[in-house]
Amino acid sequence: MSPNFFDQWKADVLTQVDLGLDQWLPKVDQVPTTLHRAMHYAIKSPGKRIRSLIACASGDLFGADIEDVVHSAVAIELVHTYSLVHDDLPCMDNDELRRGKPTVHVAFDEAIAMLVGDALQPLAFKVLVNQQTKLNNEVRLRQIQVLSESIGSLGMVGGQAIDLSQIGMSMTQSELEFMHSKKTGALFLASAELGALCGDVSSTSSRELLRTYAHQIGFGFQVVDDILDATSPTEVLGKSAGKDLRDNKPTYVTLFGLDRAKEMAHEIAENTKSTLRLLPKEGGYLDDIAKLVFDRSH
Amino acid sequence: MSPNFFDQWKADVLTQVDLGLDQWLPKVDQVPTTLHRAMHYAIKSPGKRIRSLIACASGDLFGADIEDVVHSAVAIELVHTYSLVHDDLPCMDNDELRRGKPTVHVAFDEAIAMLVGDALQPLAFKVLVNQQTKLNNEVRLRQIQVLSESIGSLGMVGGQAIDLSQIGMSMTQSELEFMHSKKTGALFLASAELGALCGDVSSTSSRELLRTYAHQIGFGFQVVDDILDATSPTEVLGKSAGKDLRDNKPTYVTLFGLDRAKEMAHEIAENTKSTLRLLPKEGGYLDDIAKLVFDRSH
Repeated sequence: MSPNFFDQWKADVLTQVDLGLDQWLPKVDQVPTTLHRAMHYAIKSPGKRIRSLIACASGDLFGADIEDVVHSAVAIELVHTYSLVHDDLPCMDNDELRRGKPTVHVAFDEAIAMLVGDALQPLAFKVLVNQQTKLNNEVRLRQIQVLSESIGSLGMVGGQAIDLSQIGMSMTQSELEFMHSKKTGALFLASAELGALCGDVSSTSSRELLRTYAHQIGFGFQVVDDILDATSPTEVLGKSAGKDLRDNKPTYVTLFGLDRAKEMAHEIAENTKSTLRLLPKEGGYLDDIAKLVFDRSH
Repeated sequence: MSPNFFDQWKADVLTQVDLGLDQWLPKVDQVPTTLHRAMHYAIKSPGKRIRSLIACASGDLFGADIEDVVHSAVAIELVHTYSLVHDDLPCMDNDELRRGKPTVHVAFDEAIAMLVGDALQPLAFKVLVNQQTKLNNEVRLRQIQVLSESIGSLGMVGGQAIDLSQIGMSMTQSELEFMHSKKTGALFLASAELGALCGDVSSTSSRELLRTYAHQIGFGFQVVDDILDATSPTEVLGKSAGKDLRDNKPTYVTLFGLDRAKEMAHEIAENTKSTLRLLPKEGGYLDDIAKLVFDRSH
């Protein structure tokens, strides 16, 4: 699709997601005010909102109205933000910078950061169950099923546990992929599925292709992340650069070297293009999102 | 109801809840195994399962089958356990003993304890959405709505945030009640509602009475907890005794003295009896549960 169309669509979507987040987050003057201020602080950091874009582009591809999909995107952003806030805590990755700002436990304290995560998670389910959309009860339940299964011990949180257990250890490529398919991939997949469920996804082959796309883009996102962590300065990343290496974490760069990691990113980008060609409208905005992911500098 | 009937019913219910937890928890040999072992460790500690009993007794009162209610009880126990695991962490209450065993971050480590909580929470929603019961889609969504709203920043986690912000400060009785109505009360209320939703709760007055009961018993539970913390040895409590006082936390005992706290517990028990008399079957097993709460020694 033409970049101008996409840029306009992206700007519209992100505005609506921000409005949606404002609608669903409790106001900062509601008790407990410190917790609510911290929740806003965490959510309002200028993230890339890639998962929101995937949800909305998937919905668009299957004929959903953006007003309906935006609540799914909000639910995904709430979960993604909770996972970042917990991951940054001292007992996890111990990161002090996120999206160019002090992390929540630095700006507030550890207890508040823990509770921010604990409160954002059920808010995501509250959004899915209470959303004022045309979605029928069956679709709502299916969305809740997808989200709850994506982020548990067999999904996102499981990936995080594997990641922590591998510090200082070597991993094969398939082990690394397995870990990332959960840690990052599960929520990418949920984003695509939640969005698509807002439209008509009765075609099994299209759903399968969408899942393949989400898997590829999640995988690519991670390889690019590892390349950027190894090559970009902190100012550009908005988070501490070179941290994986210092933390002795296995990454695509540490395991296979920078050149091979770059080759892998290129291969995944090509595979993603092949998947997109098989989707209706050649994937629509999902194609532009793939370019964003593979060509990003931070 | 006769104590024998209740004891038999209670034993049956708790057996079924334990079987339900086993059914829903991922097996300990599933990857990531450490996380799954820690989830089992946290859940299998011999808790009182008061919330499960409230859910099942509420269901029973409104004609639900125990096989249907047990999944609601499982969801509640998963959430309750997650909240204990996170509350015990060093950045929160920093407790090393729970239900007579080392807390999860002591038996494993802090990162695993964090992830145990993060994984138990979505599992609760997965149970409610996937439960193999007669409950229709509308009831399932209503259950998910109740749970998601009970445990967020305006419910349980909000109460926890208020609690942490009050360390070393004085509180009025109404401030303390407000905090506990969220920190403890919200999940008691959700337990009663989830259970009742498994049956026929079309009578508005009965639902209102059930809410009143849940509020009273949650309030009473907390006052008794404060009395026990101040008067019982660690061996009996299964958690560190006298900890509230050492942590400089406002409790019913520190604010009003032991004698007045005991009077309050007695008054709440009497009020709870009045509520029970207005419910169908005089509250059924909810009456016996009230006695458990008010007469407990740990």
